[in-house]
Amino acid sequence: MAEPLFRRLALIGVGLIGSSLARFARSRDDIAAEVVATARTAETREKVRRLRLVDHVYDTPVETVAGADCVVLCTPVGTFADLAAAIAPGLARDAILTDVGSTKQSVIRDVGPYVPEGVHFVPGHPIAGTEHSGPEAGFAELFHGRYAILTPPPGTDARAVEKVSELWRRAGSIVEVMEPSHHDRVMAIVSHLPHLIAFTICGTADDLENQSMKDVLRFAASGFRDFTRIAASDPVMWRDVFLNNREALLEMTQRFIEDMTAMARAVRWGEADYIVDKIERGRRIRRDVIALKQA
Amino acid sequence: MAEPLFRRLALIGVGLIGSSLARFARSRDDIAAEVVATARTAETREKVRRLRLVDHVYDTPVETVAGADCVVLCTPVGTFADLAAAIAPGLARDAILTDVGSTKQSVIRDVGPYVPEGVHFVPGHPIAGTEHSGPEAGFAELFHGRYAILTPPPGTDARAVEKVSELWRRAGSIVEVMEPSHHDRVMAIVSHLPHLIAFTICGTADDLENQSMKDVLRFAASGFRDFTRIAASDPVMWRDVFLNNREALLEMTQRFIEDMTAMARAVRWGEADYIVDKIERGRRIRRDVIALKQA
Repeated sequence: MAEPLFRRLALIGVGLIGSSLARFARSRDDIAAEVVATARTAETREKVRRLRLVDHVYDTPVETVAGADCVVLCTPVGTFADLAAAIAPGLARDAILTDVGSTKQSVIRDVGPYVPEGVHFVPGHPIAGTEHSGPEAGFAELFHGRYAILTPPPGTDARAVEKVSELWRRAGSIVEVMEPSHHDRVMAIVSHLPHLIAFTICGTADDLENQSMKDVLRFAASGFRDFTRIAASDPVMWRDVFLNNREALLEMTQRFIEDMTAMARAVRWGEADYIVDKIERGRRIRRDVIALKQA
Repeated sequence: MAEPLFRRLALIGVGLIGSSLARFARSRDDIAAEVVATARTAETREKVRRLRLVDHVYDTPVETVAGADCVVLCTPVGTFADLAAAIAPGLARDAILTDVGSTKQSVIRDVGPYVPEGVHFVPGHPIAGTEHSGPEAGFAELFHGRYAILTPPPGTDARAVEKVSELWRRAGSIVEVMEPSHHDRVMAIVSHLPHLIAFTICGTADDLENQSMKDVLRFAASGFRDFTRIAASDPVMWRDVFLNNREALLEMTQRFIEDMTAMARAVRWGEADYIVDKIERGRRIRRDVIALKQA
């Protein structure tokens, strides 16, 4: 039997990502000898027990982390400051504390100050997900072939970074280490802005007079439905992402609004060459995405 | 053997839609005794011959429509005024003239004045497509389960409308008759604005510094790639759609920019409830799209 990476893996939060991680860890013998978890509501804790996702479900975060050599925060990033304060007294010496949050500068800002001496903080972000949420939505293969980004602060213990890297590699992910600010900027354009657009255009459509909105739903196949898929994602998670990657998201949104305004102006004044040039650019980028096997 | 709907079906343009219509018509014996076509370039005409998509390929539109009892314009809508002028002298008395353009007020404006007395003009729009283009991209089942919208001007011969309806019904489509202005307004939000956004955000990303753009491509799976799929569509077709549905598209774009600006403001000022409300709305609309089986 392979030596497990961890003795006791503690998951704080069991939504799409947490439950996928639990399923993955329990599907193999080389991840953790024991997997434990907690969830905010009694209802979710009961679901996690019923689904037998972990070895033990605790009522509070601080009980959950006791004796764990790896703790993973899997709740919306807006909860991290309070959570870090709550678990700090319970964290074992030499434990690894990591997370799966979609923003990284805010996590370092919110969690960093509470990390006790001797605990290794390795912020992480598995770039994986679906539009579904909750403990039932997870599956062990979610991370397969996806990227996992780690943004360890300077001076982080190299063995701790390596152990978290190995966790994600065993889950099938490609691990990248990068600066938290670069992570946040890239995610702002590649993920956060597209989600902001998707939520917004649904509202724009919903504000139309009744018959038009009905026809929007009927004719959604023409492009709109590609935008609604990502609009199905979890509201609290996304609220927290938007508010915790504020600067980068606002910069990308501003750039995008400027570009939309320029496109609208070209449409108004019949600037055909400008429009074709932008469309050609879109097609080129699509080809690049396909070439990189991300489509 | 079933009585074919038409003696001679003439297709002007053999791109994704034209070639799908040709494949469908030739796959059955109840559509047309003969299918003929033309394409603008010698290269495309040669491809259509090689692919054996129709019974005969002509060099010019006016030759193609001679003796046809149904003519379908399948080129970008920006070509329609010149095409209508060119084919008018060749159109047979009692022929049906229809089209597959994504804008309908502009088609009525551009084609209407050239329609000879005794020819029945039935503007149409099959809401079907993929991100691929050209004669090789078509397939006979493209219209199956999709909507086909007809926007006949007042006084159009009812038998002509019924024959075009029957063509699309046999292709597997659900036929709807509506006002051209309502069509253009609904398509502006459901299709034209999403495409404008998709082309634009690709440009916004492409303007980022080199390393960020590289990472945009690598991490495209996080939402961006859903937008790039529709950005792969044909540039000339989309230029023409944008320029020929100008008023409705500009209205929807303006509404969307206002809504994006309000969202950005809510992010800047931390208005969590506003953000959650918009996200919840997006999710509700996604559920409605799924309920209508358009997802």
